[in-house]
Amino acid sequence: MLPQRFIKTSLRNLRSPIAAALCRNYNSKIDASKLTIERNKNPKAKVPNDQLVFGHSFTDHMLEIDWDVENGWHDPKIVPYGNLSISPAAPTLHYGIGCFEGMKAYKDAAGQVRMFRPNKNIERLENSMARLTLPSMYDCSSALFNDDATALGEDGGFLQCMKELIRLDHDWIPQEEGYSLYIRPTAIGSAESLGLKKSSHCKLFVILSPAGPYYATGFKPVKLLADTKNVRAWPGGVGNVKVAGNYGPTIKPSHDAAEDHDCNGSLWLYGENDEITEVGAMNIFFVMKKKDGSGTEIVTAPLTRGDILPGVTRDSILRLAREWGDYEVSERFLTMGEVLEAEKEGRLLESMGCGTAAIVSPVKSILYKGHEIKMPTGDEVGPVAKKMWATICDIQYGKKDEHPWSTVI
Amino acid sequence: MLPQRFIKTSLRNLRSPIAAALCRNYNSKIDASKLTIERNKNPKAKVPNDQLVFGHSFTDHMLEIDWDVENGWHDPKIVPYGNLSISPAAPTLHYGIGCFEGMKAYKDAAGQVRMFRPNKNIERLENSMARLTLPSMYDCSSALFNDDATALGEDGGFLQCMKELIRLDHDWIPQEEGYSLYIRPTAIGSAESLGLKKSSHCKLFVILSPAGPYYATGFKPVKLLADTKNVRAWPGGVGNVKVAGNYGPTIKPSHDAAEDHDCNGSLWLYGENDEITEVGAMNIFFVMKKKDGSGTEIVTAPLTRGDILPGVTRDSILRLAREWGDYEVSERFLTMGEVLEAEKEGRLLESMGCGTAAIVSPVKSILYKGHEIKMPTGDEVGPVAKKMWATICDIQYGKKDEHPWSTVI
Repeated sequence: MLPQRFIKTSLRNLRSPIAAALCRNYNSKIDASKLTIERNKNPKAKVPNDQLVFGHSFTDHMLEIDWDVENGWHDPKIVPYGNLSISPAAPTLHYGIGCFEGMKAYKDAAGQVRMFRPNKNIERLENSMARLTLPSMYDCSSALFNDDATALGEDGGFLQCMKELIRLDHDWIPQEEGYSLYIRPTAIGSAESLGLKKSSHCKLFVILSPAGPYYATGFKPVKLLADTKNVRAWPGGVGNVKVAGNYGPTIKPSHDAAEDHDCNGSLWLYGENDEITEVGAMNIFFVMKKKDGSGTEIVTAPLTRGDILPGVTRDSILRLAREWGDYEVSERFLTMGEVLEAEKEGRLLESMGCGTAAIVSPVKSILYKGHEIKMPTGDEVGPVAKKMWATICDIQYGKKDEHPWSTVI
Repeated sequence: MLPQRFIKTSLRNLRSPIAAALCRNYNSKIDASKLTIERNKNPKAKVPNDQLVFGHSFTDHMLEIDWDVENGWHDPKIVPYGNLSISPAAPTLHYGIGCFEGMKAYKDAAGQVRMFRPNKNIERLENSMARLTLPSMYDCSSALFNDDATALGEDGGFLQCMKELIRLDHDWIPQEEGYSLYIRPTAIGSAESLGLKKSSHCKLFVILSPAGPYYATGFKPVKLLADTKNVRAWPGGVGNVKVAGNYGPTIKPSHDAAEDHDCNGSLWLYGENDEITEVGAMNIFFVMKKKDGSGTEIVTAPLTRGDILPGVTRDSILRLAREWGDYEVSERFLTMGEVLEAEKEGRLLESMGCGTAAIVSPVKSILYKGHEIKMPTGDEVGPVAKKMWATICDIQYGKKDEHPWSTVI
């Protein structure tokens, strides 16, 4: 067997038959055919739908796949849901070497289980892992997003195992519209030593949590604090990947926005022109009449600078809006000055956060330097948000004609 | 008992007898008198000094102190070193809610165990915890840095327990000069649910690892890559606290600096003028003759902008340099342009990273946009780095007259 360092060095950015040959003694791919299932002998009682709190109850099983630098991926295993045994020296605890995804499975009217664009999440997870030097296609461990399989329209090994887990726990998916099964794939550096370096061990796991509708009692448009003090991400940073360290530091600012300003969340800005980047843990869209009177623009921050998370819902909204053709769809940085000007000139129409949990989260107003910018939609949901929400929901629950974004599993 | 939310809201930024009274049923402080010790029945063989690898071997015991939002701090306990049992939903794994410190204990010539300015680390840990909404003095859990005690020159509850752990495992401190016991206090969000919010549970733990001298075969001045692509921290971010998420993202740039440019680490820059901020996971100092010929300047980045870690070694070097009075000591942002100019004019004298592990890490050269800026010190250690290293070492090993920075425990 060739030394790992040689293999890794030789194969950086190289994906070829040579790579495959060099990796022969190293499990570079997750092999779903080797998945083992240890059934939970003490299944829990299901939580009644009206008592579901986001992320508080979990299904009976979870998926675990370990990796180490010498052997590559171990055989995947489904085991009873329970605590992980983690070294107190593990880099996930000390250095934030962890990344995750948020996905959902839905039960359609026919009782079939569906997923929404799952490969988009798998691809992003792989990018997050690569950024943290966890195993990825860039170092001969292209296990998650299996290029060969995907080219044939097949699933990579990781997605195959994840689907198996969801099928095993499908009874946990609430069978009411608006309900779903929240899926949390996570990868952590699980080495047993300190030292700021590539983790010699990685644990990839998936837990499942039944979730109620984000808007149990109808949409609740939110008031945001445009945060001129805290910055979520920055060029040259890691805002474009879903790594653990991007999230913890946002809790205090959001908490302060609620306590000190009675706001429901933080609108993140960047730079001396207060460019709008994201909201809370979501992307954000604005709908405005154009200054030159030539139509209406839907705008969200671009991915070019590396400080914006490439959201799956963001991408879906952009694609739908372009397909509909009613609006000018822009990926550009909008400044708070432009929003103020649009408000003043009566051109500001609506705004919405977007993400997997809510699909869309309409904005009521934005508190910026003491001035509350009010959306004309007030406590109502704007027409764009409403149409986006309904269209995406219909696809997710398979109510439309078969759509390529929805897969029965 | 008052609802926690009320208590927390009332007490934000308030530290008074009223706070203490409100907290009566809530353990706001770590009580070292309740420390329990479960001795390890299977002690490990000590690793021979010449086989020590940083962070790879650990002593027989560790300290664990749990906290929850209802009860505050639980009784501290020393237990055999071993894996932690952590919920797969814990916010430390998903959201980087974790922070740490790096400290050391030393054995002096008389066999006494010494620590170096431990309260500086405890204070910084508390700031890191507060930033991540982990329990801290700001929310009625002023357990770590016990103000009352410290005012009297006494230790807070956490430091008392930590010292007890070090005394218990004192046999693990190698008794050769240059050797020490590396101490890693860590605090993690240990709740059992998902959701981006203040963690309802926290685990504070301390592990100990015997460490060899950083320069086993003498100083090795390093070649750095001035990274014009990746940015470590930024104004409005969390670079001024020691949170997990600051570290993981630095591994890939440092790895690339080594593989692509044969450099030993990354020099972090910020802004369009390429201001020098830190190096690897250390602060950095430059020594230069002043342009106006009025003397020699020692310069490091200031803490004012919030993107620089307030290093204990950084603070010690600043204080010593000011005490000596031979140099103009500046805390200001130095640009790469200034360094290039100083090199050209023969005014650049030396540069050194500084941190707990190495004390000082002399710089040999800096690769910046293809040009290698060479320090006149070359592979030697400059006089300032040498004097700093010797002075701090002498204090740490108690070789000088009793110094307030060194405490026998």
